[in-house]
Amino acid sequence: MQTTTECLTLGDLPALARGCAVLGTGGGGNVETGTLTAAKAIAEYGEVPLIPLSEVPDDGLILPLSGIGAPTVAHEMPMSGEEPVLIRDEVERLLGRPVAAVMASEIGGSNGVGPVAWAARLGLPLVDADGMGRAFPEVQMVAMYIADRPLDIVVLADVQGNVIALRPVDAMWSERIGRAVCVACGGSALMADYVLTAAQARGAVIEGSVSSALAIGRAVREGAEPVAGLCETLGATVLLHGKVIDVDRWTTGGFVRGSLVVDGTGEHQGRLLRVEIQNENLIAFEDGRLRASVPDLITVVDQKTADAISTESLRYGQRVSVLSWPCDPIWRTERGLATVGPRAFGYDIDYTPVEELAHA
Amino acid sequence: MQTTTECLTLGDLPALARGCAVLGTGGGGNVETGTLTAAKAIAEYGEVPLIPLSEVPDDGLILPLSGIGAPTVAHEMPMSGEEPVLIRDEVERLLGRPVAAVMASEIGGSNGVGPVAWAARLGLPLVDADGMGRAFPEVQMVAMYIADRPLDIVVLADVQGNVIALRPVDAMWSERIGRAVCVACGGSALMADYVLTAAQARGAVIEGSVSSALAIGRAVREGAEPVAGLCETLGATVLLHGKVIDVDRWTTGGFVRGSLVVDGTGEHQGRLLRVEIQNENLIAFEDGRLRASVPDLITVVDQKTADAISTESLRYGQRVSVLSWPCDPIWRTERGLATVGPRAFGYDIDYTPVEELAHA
Repeated sequence: MQTTTECLTLGDLPALARGCAVLGTGGGGNVETGTLTAAKAIAEYGEVPLIPLSEVPDDGLILPLSGIGAPTVAHEMPMSGEEPVLIRDEVERLLGRPVAAVMASEIGGSNGVGPVAWAARLGLPLVDADGMGRAFPEVQMVAMYIADRPLDIVVLADVQGNVIALRPVDAMWSERIGRAVCVACGGSALMADYVLTAAQARGAVIEGSVSSALAIGRAVREGAEPVAGLCETLGATVLLHGKVIDVDRWTTGGFVRGSLVVDGTGEHQGRLLRVEIQNENLIAFEDGRLRASVPDLITVVDQKTADAISTESLRYGQRVSVLSWPCDPIWRTERGLATVGPRAFGYDIDYTPVEELAHA
Repeated sequence: MQTTTECLTLGDLPALARGCAVLGTGGGGNVETGTLTAAKAIAEYGEVPLIPLSEVPDDGLILPLSGIGAPTVAHEMPMSGEEPVLIRDEVERLLGRPVAAVMASEIGGSNGVGPVAWAARLGLPLVDADGMGRAFPEVQMVAMYIADRPLDIVVLADVQGNVIALRPVDAMWSERIGRAVCVACGGSALMADYVLTAAQARGAVIEGSVSSALAIGRAVREGAEPVAGLCETLGATVLLHGKVIDVDRWTTGGFVRGSLVVDGTGEHQGRLLRVEIQNENLIAFEDGRLRASVPDLITVVDQKTADAISTESLRYGQRVSVLSWPCDPIWRTERGLATVGPRAFGYDIDYTPVEELAHA
């Protein structure tokens, strides 16, 4: 049997970035910075092999990486580029064995593109998987937590070169201490959490998410009807085609909160859709009726190009399509919904899968 | 040649606590909590061998420990007792070798008594040395920093069981990140910094400080003239015998600030002494004339018992003696004074040794 390893090249980055933006559901940070960093790293250190989880041997160590902190800070204070090296070295010292591959903790937004840069810098392959299948704001909102995998160590490194290794008693303490460290480091840092062997990762991560982001990103640019093509790739429902007529948005407690109102146009003339935002697009209502909710994905795209529009780029008058599609099944388990369902974000709403709501 | 190792016993604790209170120069936290914890640990784990630094082999690893955070929190949220084990295990994992002995980072106040408990819990000897020879408020204010020893790792553990290991780029970042971690952990934690081999520790720590605290504590209880006896043991000058007539004290930015005015009595009738406070007693003036300043030690003691009175216990009407005596020579070096001289605390004053001021 012969396996041909696919490599992520410079040419793949635009599609990957577009796909990660769609999976970011409005949040997850600006994909531009991540794309530039990844392009520079590929040019300097070479292309990055993309391998399925099944190709990592059972005892191979997987390093899930993500940026932590305010995306606005990450945008203005770029990383030094050495953070992944500092983290990898510390993880290997603490666990006494080499890291076999890098993984994205979060495929949505800039954290979906960054791992290409980090894997290139480390000369390691990137596992075709991630911890969310989308974007979420907190450390414990990952599939590895839902699958109850051990959170033995969390390692952070900052642009100054500080390295911080936590052995938290649980994921909540990891979020609390990691967040405080990130703020003390200037508001942005690189983080590894849920370092796992491939055996532990199986069944506890979302597989195929890098390929999926690439396919989504390519769909955005294909065909005469980009939005229709994207919907087909995603298996998405169009909640509404329309015009942005109201954007209410403020920053509080380290999060962006607000709402968006879209006024139907064309075949959707006369209908109004309201989307509730907390960093990501969380819930969509039409005339008080639930159309879609977290953990299912809700993304606002440009009606013409099908490019995702992030929360901070929403403007009055934009012609958009609001899409929604089913999340990974792990989020629909009891523990999944307790962690990232509507109530976990403060909404007194029962979760109903978007495909059921579409048929209602 | 035969060496008989001295052991710290339950019976030594009251004298040690009194001595540490004197060396706390008003700050360093309440010695009561530390004494109770040490008594419990000795009862449970046995007496603690006190060994001179010269008895630790060159490559023996020394673990300097201290509580970090607000003393008020430490008083209300006692440690679990397992923090030293968590820290020792993490240090040994990170450095790949066993810890040989515990050392006090700070001999002044509760952090001078706590190491007896921590060494007992670990079944390790306590080195007769510390990092200050007194009390100071910040992480970089230790002799090891002045002697430019490497600060490779800083490890913290909290009452919940969280363990945090830092590899800071310098001592200032260690203070910043360590302080943020301490706050996230609830305001109090145990910390190891400047983990050194005995070879690195030689010339970079203040030797004999535990014996010295014991001798001082015993002097407090001896003779018909406790204050005179204490002065002789310390080599201290009496700045003033008198009555507390004004205490101005407030908590700001994590520090206690204020001042104290003592009105001379007896042979000192008609004289006034003002002591400036920032956690510790920092500077003493008489009629605008400098009488003593940091890093030399200034302690307020009870005129009758010679017991040290901490900053937070100062009250109107107390009959006190204000004593001052020379600090360890390491603090009088250029780097020492830059780190803990009057200007490091915001006073625009040149340092003059207390013994020169006494003869002026």
